[in-house]
Amino acid sequence: MKAIQKTSAQPGLTFTTNALMPKINSPTEVLIKVRATAICGTDVDIYKSDEDLARRMAKALPVIIGHEFCGEIAEVGKAVKRAKVGDYVSAEMHIVCGECYNCRTGNGHWCINTSVKGIDDDGCFAEYVVVPEYNIIKLPEDLPEDVAAYLDAIGNAMHTMSTIQIASRRIAILGAGPMGIMAAKIAKLCGAIEVLITDVNPMLLKVAAQNGADHVFNVSNPDERKAFIEICRKDPTRRGVDAVVEMSGHPTAYEDLFECVRMGGEVALLGLPRHPLSVNFTRHVVFKGLTIRGITGRRMFDTWFRMLGLMQAGLLPTLKEIVTHHLPLEDFQKGFDIKLKGDGLKVVFKP
Amino acid sequence: MKAIQKTSAQPGLTFTTNALMPKINSPTEVLIKVRATAICGTDVDIYKSDEDLARRMAKALPVIIGHEFCGEIAEVGKAVKRAKVGDYVSAEMHIVCGECYNCRTGNGHWCINTSVKGIDDDGCFAEYVVVPEYNIIKLPEDLPEDVAAYLDAIGNAMHTMSTIQIASRRIAILGAGPMGIMAAKIAKLCGAIEVLITDVNPMLLKVAAQNGADHVFNVSNPDERKAFIEICRKDPTRRGVDAVVEMSGHPTAYEDLFECVRMGGEVALLGLPRHPLSVNFTRHVVFKGLTIRGITGRRMFDTWFRMLGLMQAGLLPTLKEIVTHHLPLEDFQKGFDIKLKGDGLKVVFKP
Amino acid sequence: MKAIQKTSAQPGLTFTTNALMPKINSPTEVLIKVRATAICGTDVDIYKSDEDLARRMAKALPVIIGHEFCGEIAEVGKAVKRAKVGDYVSAEMHIVCGECYNCRTGNGHWCINTSVKGIDDDGCFAEYVVVPEYNIIKLPEDLPEDVAAYLDAIGNAMHTMSTIQIASRRIAILGAGPMGIMAAKIAKLCGAIEVLITDVNPMLLKVAAQNGADHVFNVSNPDERKAFIEICRKDPTRRGVDAVVEMSGHPTAYEDLFECVRMGGEVALLGLPRHPLSVNFTRHVVFKGLTIRGITGRRMFDTWFRMLGLMQAGLLPTLKEIVTHHLPLEDFQKGFDIKLKGDGLKVVFKP
Amino acid sequence: MKAIQKTSAQPGLTFTTNALMPKINSPTEVLIKVRATAICGTDVDIYKSDEDLARRMAKALPVIIGHEFCGEIAEVGKAVKRAKVGDYVSAEMHIVCGECYNCRTGNGHWCINTSVKGIDDDGCFAEYVVVPEYNIIKLPEDLPEDVAAYLDAIGNAMHTMSTIQIASRRIAILGAGPMGIMAAKIAKLCGAIEVLITDVNPMLLKVAAQNGADHVFNVSNPDERKAFIEICRKDPTRRGVDAVVEMSGHPTAYEDLFECVRMGGEVALLGLPRHPLSVNFTRHVVFKGLTIRGITGRRMFDTWFRMLGLMQAGLLPTLKEIVTHHLPLEDFQKGFDIKLKGDGLKVVFKP
Repeated sequence: MKAIQKTSAQPGLTFTTNALMPKINSPTEVLIKVRATAICGTDVDIYKSDEDLARRMAKALPVIIGHEFCGEIAEVGKAVKRAKVGDYVSAEMHIVCGECYNCRTGNGHWCINTSVKGIDDDGCFAEYVVVPEYNIIKLPEDLPEDVAAYLDAIGNAMHTMSTIQIASRRIAILGAGPMGIMAAKIAKLCGAIEVLITDVNPMLLKVAAQNGADHVFNVSNPDERKAFIEICRKDPTRRGVDAVVEMSGHPTAYEDLFECVRMGGEVALLGLPRHPLSVNFTRHVVFKGLTIRGITGRRMFDTWFRMLGLMQAGLLPTLKEIVTHHLPLEDFQKGFDIKLKGDGLKVVFKP
Repeated sequence: MKAIQKTSAQPGLTFTTNALMPKINSPTEVLIKVRATAICGTDVDIYKSDEDLARRMAKALPVIIGHEFCGEIAEVGKAVKRAKVGDYVSAEMHIVCGECYNCRTGNGHWCINTSVKGIDDDGCFAEYVVVPEYNIIKLPEDLPEDVAAYLDAIGNAMHTMSTIQIASRRIAILGAGPMGIMAAKIAKLCGAIEVLITDVNPMLLKVAAQNGADHVFNVSNPDERKAFIEICRKDPTRRGVDAVVEMSGHPTAYEDLFECVRMGGEVALLGLPRHPLSVNFTRHVVFKGLTIRGITGRRMFDTWFRMLGLMQAGLLPTLKEIVTHHLPLEDFQKGFDIKLKGDGLKVVFKP
Repeated sequence: MKAIQKTSAQPGLTFTTNALMPKINSPTEVLIKVRATAICGTDVDIYKSDEDLARRMAKALPVIIGHEFCGEIAEVGKAVKRAKVGDYVSAEMHIVCGECYNCRTGNGHWCINTSVKGIDDDGCFAEYVVVPEYNIIKLPEDLPEDVAAYLDAIGNAMHTMSTIQIASRRIAILGAGPMGIMAAKIAKLCGAIEVLITDVNPMLLKVAAQNGADHVFNVSNPDERKAFIEICRKDPTRRGVDAVVEMSGHPTAYEDLFECVRMGGEVALLGLPRHPLSVNFTRHVVFKGLTIRGITGRRMFDTWFRMLGLMQAGLLPTLKEIVTHHLPLEDFQKGFDIKLKGDGLKVVFKP
Repeated sequence: MKAIQKTSAQPGLTFTTNALMPKINSPTEVLIKVRATAICGTDVDIYKSDEDLARRMAKALPVIIGHEFCGEIAEVGKAVKRAKVGDYVSAEMHIVCGECYNCRTGNGHWCINTSVKGIDDDGCFAEYVVVPEYNIIKLPEDLPEDVAAYLDAIGNAMHTMSTIQIASRRIAILGAGPMGIMAAKIAKLCGAIEVLITDVNPMLLKVAAQNGADHVFNVSNPDERKAFIEICRKDPTRRGVDAVVEMSGHPTAYEDLFECVRMGGEVALLGLPRHPLSVNFTRHVVFKGLTIRGITGRRMFDTWFRMLGLMQAGLLPTLKEIVTHHLPLEDFQKGFDIKLKGDGLKVVFKP
């Protein structure tokens, strides 16, 4: 079958038409025919052979990458109960052990034995993919494939926003990529008073302004960056926003976040800094009484219910707008070039 | 009256018998005759003219230091309602504005206009001190003065421990000073399965072992430090303790904390690092799904109720044991020498 | 001055032009000139000399009733800090003791010594009213007086909705009076997927349908009542709404609430049943794993911040629409007749 | 094999030596050889042919009853991963669907399709029982069989206590059967200041007094009942205990609970009233600001981890003491007679 593989530790990816069809190995697995799949930031890092990822993937090569998708069930294992051939589905691609303490207490997103399809094992940039039935999410028939193609990413944004208080709050979002834009819209749909967002890319800030952000700041401009902090702190009874959502991983965003949040505020960290960062814990964390949460994956499967619910409550138009490019799987290079140049938001492939 | 003052930006403190008696300036204040008062780590930093504190105090000098004490009400303002002359009391020495958002929503410990008596204004290393009635805590008559002398510090430990789940949990505490020892005992009284504590001072570790700590580790020894991490991670279904309490401010403790905590664990930060610290947020916070809370002050006045309650539930003997030295106020230098050498736990002065 | 008083245990109220001007008795109080004030359901019960209220008020008669209002500060006590003459304000009319455990731990709405102005003491159906500065809420200058007149009631709805999870949830509201309508709109503004509301008054249901309710049910019609339960339970994976908000106090609503909520659902009770009600706790509460919260007053002052915030986020138009009648204070009888007949929503008086 | 069955709608149970050995029907199930099993209150109700249970079980008769046990794995299905023949285990006997919203969001104890082994299907009063591997809990080898025999019940108490705040709190427990006694001990182990417990059986109250209860009240004596309420309300700043745990299902306990709890207190309901009860919701729930939680089952599997953890923290001696009788399965009648007469706490059978 057609697939995009990482075949070596070198930058780049390989398109093949000769990938082996995946097989159902356990009676509780299902085979899915992929309808649409999307590029995630992690895929770009894999393309670039990011050091940590390259090391992690070395033992699995060649591996079909991709972990955001929707499709149709093509075959079910013998012990499968809910899923039926023909079902329109997506899947959580974090494969969890089901045995560790976190798995056994409803916190599978913190499984200590997680493996991720598309990184540690074959993923969905292909015609077919196999996943455990447990990981399958049945989708409403009318959910556009374009949106269903990147539920994994929507779930990251949804999970992040579920960890902070939103209603009647002022929220700052650092980073206006697809994650930040979704976060802005989610905040507005859930009753935020004011949503402020920063980035260095005017195109992204423009989309954010049309999708929930009340104020956008191009922080490559020192004056706008200063204005951002000042507007965050304008309320003399709070001197800072109630919550900050970090979605860029940039060192300067980490500087801004401690300046823009109020005493006792909440911080959610989803962005991935490339290097260790230096923080004045005494002044910025201890004395400020902050609560900081690292966000990984999606709650299984609470986050999935929440995001499908919020689509009914008004999130869908933003999600459609975020898909800026459609390409056949063969044109994967074009898709990655768009992401590498920062020219688009979500790039969706149809195998 | 007698008092200990900070009089200049130079290290050291000054004892005087000529300090002005404080006066009730507002009808809602009370005057308290100090019975006992204790040295806090912050007082040691003031003694040493720590840079941040020296800068902060420059405008207030000379200032009577000290912010942990108990005493007896000597006089009450005209609008005072609850407090009566003769009442045995302590007081929250964080003076909050009552007007900011945090004050008006039950989170006065995050007041954006806090001033601290004993730092920003005259404190309690003296015969008398004035505080707002709002800040007064009435004490049970049978509470030993020695313990009542440092409720502020007990409250720091109590507040810290109130932010994490304890019952049925394994807890690591980094730093076995008075704070760490109290935290260990609180953890055991509240149902912790196992309490592990680290320090570099064998005397402190010994007291911790007698007051709730199941395992103590002298992390100045690399083997013990390694053993600490290994024992924290020994449960193969969790690979880390459920919560870590940082009470040392040491850079190596910050290294250890991210190693010893499990995926999805809780971190409470009370210790004050002297310098910014470098953290691998991607690996240690985001991917690990940690919740990190900076702890400042005491909840007004929930923490005070909790600590008085927990004394009834068994905390009192540990609190008595922690007071290792009693001195008249005149011998303040002796008291500070003990703390500077790390020879004692709590030093209590009687004015 | 002009005022409306309860003067005896008999039904009805009395208008007077000879009421004594209230005086500042404590240095921490302020005198407010009332601009607008609104009829609450409790006022209607006082008018009718409801048994419990009549007994409670017997000792205080004659008393000026009314506890929802806005106005302008006319005079301030000597120890007043924040408030200034001329400030546009409203006030929390629950006067709390500041001394009990709940008051001292940020839960003044649960004060065990609460007295309510307009019930236990003179209220705001008058030209002037005196309240402690602590209870004052400063209002934005552009907040319409009509809306500011009934912030107390808006706060009841806001407080109720703050106790349940709303985003991505299906919510049923029982009772479509002003409380239910506000609850419906708040739910939609905070990300509810679907809001269902019941009442027996078609006019109210119509307003609800225009202000956030997705489905309205006239439960005086047995078929509609049945349909309500069925639609609540339509999702075969939940069999019930996620949360129910009871705002009617009607016995049939209490029957419906246990039928329409899912296993593990949340219930918020604000309505006041006139008589004890019989509940099958085994089947409906224990086995169903419900969480039921009784709601009283407003959080001091978190609820006030939240409702002012949510007005900025879109609540204001609904709040304006809810005011259906304006009358001079003299025409109080007309106002109460409207409420007694169920012909209007909020009736606002201008003294 | 040997088993105790419910064979008809008549009161009583039947011992047989000819029950069919249960078989593994799905590759994910395991067969367990029962080592010890205990009588639960529900089993007594089944014995008595309680109306609701008789109706529920009518379609399944004859059914082997019993749902509390420990044993050794005798055989595993082909898709079983964790469990191995010989493992010492217990099991959650609530069989959940894994597909409903609650199951998919970590709240399987609220599964809308739960079936209970020992009620809806064959249980563990037998030599062997089959359960899904998912439901298996591996036990430490040194856990006494007597205690392991009733982990299901221990879990009910643990789950109940996990829903309220305990540390530094005063707790009232209504009902001093095994549940109430375990609750009392758990409360003390987790930092309760004071535990008060009521019952009408002096023997039970005596055991409670030796296992964590600070005060016991025989509420069959009106003076003691009055004293109970008074002592609960003795603190003039709270006028009630912080939390009440209802474990009797008695109507008088429901009267007491609303009297003994403070404003804003917490209520956990585990006892099963036989009939609907009348409650003054206005006075006792709404105005009092209570939070009431119905408790069903055990969290899967958080509660199981917590109770095993708390055994290490000191719960074990109480759990051993609660087992008052051991009998061979053949003598089931003797065991039920003990429970019917209220002469014992836990009765353990060895098949």
